Amino acid sequence: MRLRNIKNADEIINKSKYIIIDPKKYKNKFNSLFNNDNPIYIEIGMGKGNFIINNAITYPNINFIGIEKYASVLTKACSKLEDLNLNNLKIMNIDANEIDVIFNKEIDLIYLNFSDPWPKKRHANRRLSDKTFLNKYDTIFKDKRHIIMKTDNRKLFEYSIMSFTEFGYQINDISLNLYQDDIQNNIQTEYEKKFHDKGFPIYKIDVEKK
Amino acid sequence: MRLRNIKNADEIINKSKYIIIDPKKYKNKFNSLFNNDNPIYIEIGMGKGNFIINNAITYPNINFIGIEKYASVLTKACSKLEDLNLNNLKIMNIDANEIDVIFNKEIDLIYLNFSDPWPKKRHANRRLSDKTFLNKYDTIFKDKRHIIMKTDNRKLFEYSIMSFTEFGYQINDISLNLYQDDIQNNIQTEYEKKFHDKGFPIYKIDVEKK
Repeated sequence: MRLRNIKNADEIINKSKYIIIDPKKYKNKFNSLFNNDNPIYIEIGMGKGNFIINNAITYPNINFIGIEKYASVLTKACSKLEDLNLNNLKIMNIDANEIDVIFNKEIDLIYLNFSDPWPKKRHANRRLSDKTFLNKYDTIFKDKRHIIMKTDNRKLFEYSIMSFTEFGYQINDISLNLYQDDIQNNIQTEYEKKFHDKGFPIYKIDVEKK
Repeated sequence: MRLRNIKNADEIINKSKYIIIDPKKYKNKFNSLFNNDNPIYIEIGMGKGNFIINNAITYPNINFIGIEKYASVLTKACSKLEDLNLNNLKIMNIDANEIDVIFNKEIDLIYLNFSDPWPKKRHANRRLSDKTFLNKYDTIFKDKRHIIMKTDNRKLFEYSIMSFTEFGYQINDISLNLYQDDIQNNIQTEYEKKFHDKGFPIYKIDVEKK
């Protein structure tokens, strides 16, 4: 996600009722934020928020938490959320690396959408599907581990298929060209719309580990 | 592989020195056919033979056995082979279903190239990457199980990724667009050339199970 730096971005997002200002203090009790015991789905790298906001609108019985490290990007999501009253959505401005100090065995599903591909081999462990992150995710999943990834990046997708399966995940579903399949319930991200409109295939994989 | 029926196809192929007329009698001793203990690689569905013939030429220290159920198709391969003297190649006119009554723990690698996708769900167990066949392959591999598949068929490829990994295979390598990668050592099949020339992506996966 590349975006011009926005002055006072922190100030802007901290005014939003959706922002969790001090996420660490909710460790082990994120359900208390939502006042219910519904499943919690997170999106790591929520960007401008289209995907997670529309998910929260579509699935009121699931709690969503969006994670994004760039405050400037989050200002866009906060402005989209301004006139909405969603009780099942929170967002936080943290780096994905911190995820295992924020959550503990309380997440049901992780969405990875159009993550940074980190194309250089020496940066492989920064990819959100690398085992460095899969190890962190292991500590935040409540019960079974469940990840759904979409990307337009072929190399990242190939790497992710190998990384997930090597780590013991089973593939529930895979599409090498999502828009040629049934996409009735597909919720787009901003990137996805852009890349699909350009004619690039969109890849999707749904993996699970007991 | 669709091909006009050729009269006397059986007669034609049985004249070739490359044909194994009664394959069952070599069970447990296929190496005796080659007079050496080199690894044996097989291609199930060798079609007109480009792939396996060029492999045999390129890798003289590996023994190759091509399998094809249509005698008519094999006549093409036999005619290509007529003027060649390859000691490391044999072909047989059998159905893939028979593979486990022909071989026993003597195969090192299986190539599946542009196999019939059997698109209907009720025919899934006819796909050469279905667990019906993976179970058969288990009995013919000498040591570790090793399969390399190429196809232009997206649905078959998606199914195969899931089938291999569910069966416990690990992915050594995967390409969702072979011709955009390094294909220096790639040996084409007839179908592959045709589909690549039409601009379709060629998929490849290399899987292994200890």
